Amino acid sequence: MHAPVPKLTLGSFLRSIWKIMAARPQVPPALEGNAMLRTILQRRSARRFADRPLPEDAFAAILEAGRLAPSTVNLQTWTFAHFTRPSWQSTFGRSIPFKAARAVIVLGDLIRSRELLDTLTPSPLVFYTLAVMNASLAAMNMTLAAEALGVSSVMLSETGRSGLLDAGYLRQTLCLPEGVFPLMTIAFGYPARAEQPMPPKLPLEEISFSDGKYHPANPAVLDDWLEQMTAGYKASFPFSSLAAQLKVYESKIEQAEKDLNKMIFSRDGIA
Amino acid sequence: MHAPVPKLTLGSFLRSIWKIMAARPQVPPALEGNAMLRTILQRRSARRFADRPLPEDAFAAILEAGRLAPSTVNLQTWTFAHFTRPSWQSTFGRSIPFKAARAVIVLGDLIRSRELLDTLTPSPLVFYTLAVMNASLAAMNMTLAAEALGVSSVMLSETGRSGLLDAGYLRQTLCLPEGVFPLMTIAFGYPARAEQPMPPKLPLEEISFSDGKYHPANPAVLDDWLEQMTAGYKASFPFSSLAAQLKVYESKIEQAEKDLNKMIFSRDGIA
Repeated sequence: MHAPVPKLTLGSFLRSIWKIMAARPQVPPALEGNAMLRTILQRRSARRFADRPLPEDAFAAILEAGRLAPSTVNLQTWTFAHFTRPSWQSTFGRSIPFKAARAVIVLGDLIRSRELLDTLTPSPLVFYTLAVMNASLAAMNMTLAAEALGVSSVMLSETGRSGLLDAGYLRQTLCLPEGVFPLMTIAFGYPARAEQPMPPKLPLEEISFSDGKYHPANPAVLDDWLEQMTAGYKASFPFSSLAAQLKVYESKIEQAEKDLNKMIFSRDGIA
Repeated sequence: MHAPVPKLTLGSFLRSIWKIMAARPQVPPALEGNAMLRTILQRRSARRFADRPLPEDAFAAILEAGRLAPSTVNLQTWTFAHFTRPSWQSTFGRSIPFKAARAVIVLGDLIRSRELLDTLTPSPLVFYTLAVMNASLAAMNMTLAAEALGVSSVMLSETGRSGLLDAGYLRQTLCLPEGVFPLMTIAFGYPARAEQPMPPKLPLEEISFSDGKYHPANPAVLDDWLEQMTAGYKASFPFSSLAAQLKVYESKIEQAEKDLNKMIFSRDGIA
């Protein structure tokens, strides 16, 4: 595909897989006994679920965590489309991705805040950004409420035509009015297998600064990370590659760019 | 200001305050004993902090929750600018908002994902949206890791020139390169007072649907909510009003709209 996705040798593949397998959340020793912290730091996206239903009250508690998430000026700029297996099937004509037990499509929703703020000078990008931000806060709150109940989940932007990359399709299927847009589907269920290794995470120094000035990235660290990403992808999907997968995304991303521009800004693409 | 922000009578004020005081998280009885769920549902944004430092390892665990948050294709499109009281003072020439003990400015960061995806057709709105989404997931993960340690927090978009509405100012102060933008400051500290009432939340029926089709809002429920918002604001800030506060935001929002368009899309405003 292109230069930054590295070609793997057997040596670099094994070295990268070893690094992935060895990585652990870094918990300060004095805090290791904190069960909630451990649950948060050990959360993983699940892609295999047990064939076991989710009790109604567990799912209600998850939605309640979405409802009570923080939001800018408490505007609650979100809507949750929630599904059982049968209602997903009848809406989309297929199963919930990864055969999960329940699903929530998290939508950014500008309609209610527009009502409150309708005399302000139009600032579509600011309000769109706040809606994306708030809906994402709600998504993470739901995900961690699920973890509290032993329920795993995965956030999907693309798989099964279920997220931002399928904005136009979901707008049509869910009859979304102007100003309402899909961010992701969260698929929920009990986990079917033991915890997988963490996807390769950049070291804290690379993604943070403490001296008030942004630092450019360290290319050697980024290269190492990208090699781990490539190797990890190959280990999970031996007959594909990260580069090939990115290529698959490409056409969907192009279409989503057009659809989002229409849905949010009523315009045809960006110059 | 404008029609939707209602004028309060003494009766409507008292009725609204009573509703706010009476609202509680709705926890299914069987799950009331779940400590982590309770912590998530009872989280409140804090605006008063104890004058007590945050131990280094607690703050390290909070940042670790940011680092390990989920993100689209594991791209980790975020950077965290973190501060002590002295480093905030020397960067901004004033105290951390609400005199909190520590602060993290959560930045969306498109630079690393661009490196990986630089041969894809440019789709700035999609990648911007994903960066906002992922950085917000990290923000919520940090906030809940803090709660696990008894540390309260508040996410700020505006107060103290610390968030999205100050995008241009923060870009300059933190020397942010193109493609890096501030979303919010999270101010962290031990809480100084007992839990406050919840801000008025819309009922689940109003912000969700389960039949696969988006429903328009119920105007009566929205009016009731807006009356509670107005009353709650008046109760917290007797010498101001929600309408007046929204007016204050207006000029900042207009400026932020221009700055963000330049920072993200290299263009001057939206037609």
